[in-house]
Amino acid sequence: MTDQSGRPRVGAVKQITSHSNPIVKEIKGLVTLRKHRSQSGLFVAEGLKLATDALAAGWSVRYLALGPEARDNPVAQRAAASAKARGALILEVNTGVLAAITRRDNPQMVVGVYEQQLTPVDAIDPARATVWIALDRVRDPGNLGTIIRTADAVGASGVMLVGDCTDPFAVEAVRATMGSLFHVPLARLSTDAFKALAAKWPGMVVGTHLEGSVDYRSLDYSEPALLLMGNEQQGLPADMAACCSHLVRIPQVGQADSLNLAVATGIALYEIRRKHLSL
Amino acid sequence: MTDQSGRPRVGAVKQITSHSNPIVKEIKGLVTLRKHRSQSGLFVAEGLKLATDALAAGWSVRYLALGPEARDNPVAQRAAASAKARGALILEVNTGVLAAITRRDNPQMVVGVYEQQLTPVDAIDPARATVWIALDRVRDPGNLGTIIRTADAVGASGVMLVGDCTDPFAVEAVRATMGSLFHVPLARLSTDAFKALAAKWPGMVVGTHLEGSVDYRSLDYSEPALLLMGNEQQGLPADMAACCSHLVRIPQVGQADSLNLAVATGIALYEIRRKHLSL
Repeated sequence: MTDQSGRPRVGAVKQITSHSNPIVKEIKGLVTLRKHRSQSGLFVAEGLKLATDALAAGWSVRYLALGPEARDNPVAQRAAASAKARGALILEVNTGVLAAITRRDNPQMVVGVYEQQLTPVDAIDPARATVWIALDRVRDPGNLGTIIRTADAVGASGVMLVGDCTDPFAVEAVRATMGSLFHVPLARLSTDAFKALAAKWPGMVVGTHLEGSVDYRSLDYSEPALLLMGNEQQGLPADMAACCSHLVRIPQVGQADSLNLAVATGIALYEIRRKHLSL
Repeated sequence: MTDQSGRPRVGAVKQITSHSNPIVKEIKGLVTLRKHRSQSGLFVAEGLKLATDALAAGWSVRYLALGPEARDNPVAQRAAASAKARGALILEVNTGVLAAITRRDNPQMVVGVYEQQLTPVDAIDPARATVWIALDRVRDPGNLGTIIRTADAVGASGVMLVGDCTDPFAVEAVRATMGSLFHVPLARLSTDAFKALAAKWPGMVVGTHLEGSVDYRSLDYSEPALLLMGNEQQGLPADMAACCSHLVRIPQVGQADSLNLAVATGIALYEIRRKHLSL
């Protein structure tokens, strides 16, 4: 089970029952602290569906922790075999350890630790793009995860995280993607890098803005498009709005000040891709 | 400060510094336990914006707790004066008490306790409706709150909670409404009551369904409409789908299994109200 250094061999299986096991502590650190995720380049995703998504999409698995229920589940066993063949360490744990790792009373039967993947900025290729979504300093992990899920559903090319965004690899964000994290390219850009990219973007750069004077449905959208969304508190600041070729507004008639960010992004994406989406 | 029974007089002001004060305990109970909210008919909403929304919309305020910052804030002082004039007890508390009440490290400066309001089923009047949204056993309070916010933005007539739904008066749900809770009528219906209402609904009853064979954009929507959304886990069960005059699907091209419920509801609502919404 261990190599000569005493560390567990990758591609092996290890039983863990103690909450103070170093690997359990390492995984808990990945769940709770962004710093641990950044330093290690790892993150935690809960659930068998996400494990199968990750494996199918070719993401690297470091650990796959299986609770008691997973041992009788053929899908979980196939996922474990596949992860093990690719060098993951399989952890057989009890429900208490799973609950402690994920800080949930009713944990999923499988919890995976994966290597983060980001798309380098210079690999963003507008010539092959449908629409990229750029999020300016998005704050809420649930919103970010939900937007990644919607991006997948509309066939977007990817999501750019501009400036100081919430961590897409936080457990709440990963959870909200429902597995789309493993299918949608993510890139991280400084504000300046985004401005440079927007300036040379060969197609429309569309910003949604409360003061946008154009109805979002009035444009004839073409691809590659770049959709820029402001954050939950402030919307788009003036310098970011200035990057856009078009500023649009989603009309509202009630007393709500604004739409939820993930809802507004979904509505804009379904409009931008309207011609391309059909049953 | 107290009447002859020793209880604080309504329409009065009371300083509280102790976390074990009975009113503080009562409010904490409303935050944490649905049972306490149901039994008392009260709920907690955080923030000055929600307090001004509630007061403007004529909701009854039981308590308005003001932190130190609120005492120098003219908007907060006006809200407090208005609440007091309507019989609320104003609580002057420290930040520690506010944090304890709302279980947040950085609490808002104002926290209000309001009387729940629901629209009786027989007060739902299709003749005066644009679109009502019916949610079948919605589970996630954030989704429910976000849907109420979107309902406000599109000018929907209200939201029906069908069957065993998450509590719209839970703090997370109220928070996600961003104040729209006070503007959007809510009704609670059993599944049977909903089926009876749907059967006599004079307009379209539209269900979104993964197996719906019609593209959601292909219908010529008319009002009053009734939009029925299934829940996060299951979508619409067959007996609920059978209540619909039209079953529609929102096309998806990626590998996501489905859209987030609040996003899907937003996309459907903007389509149903497309003719009626303009800048």
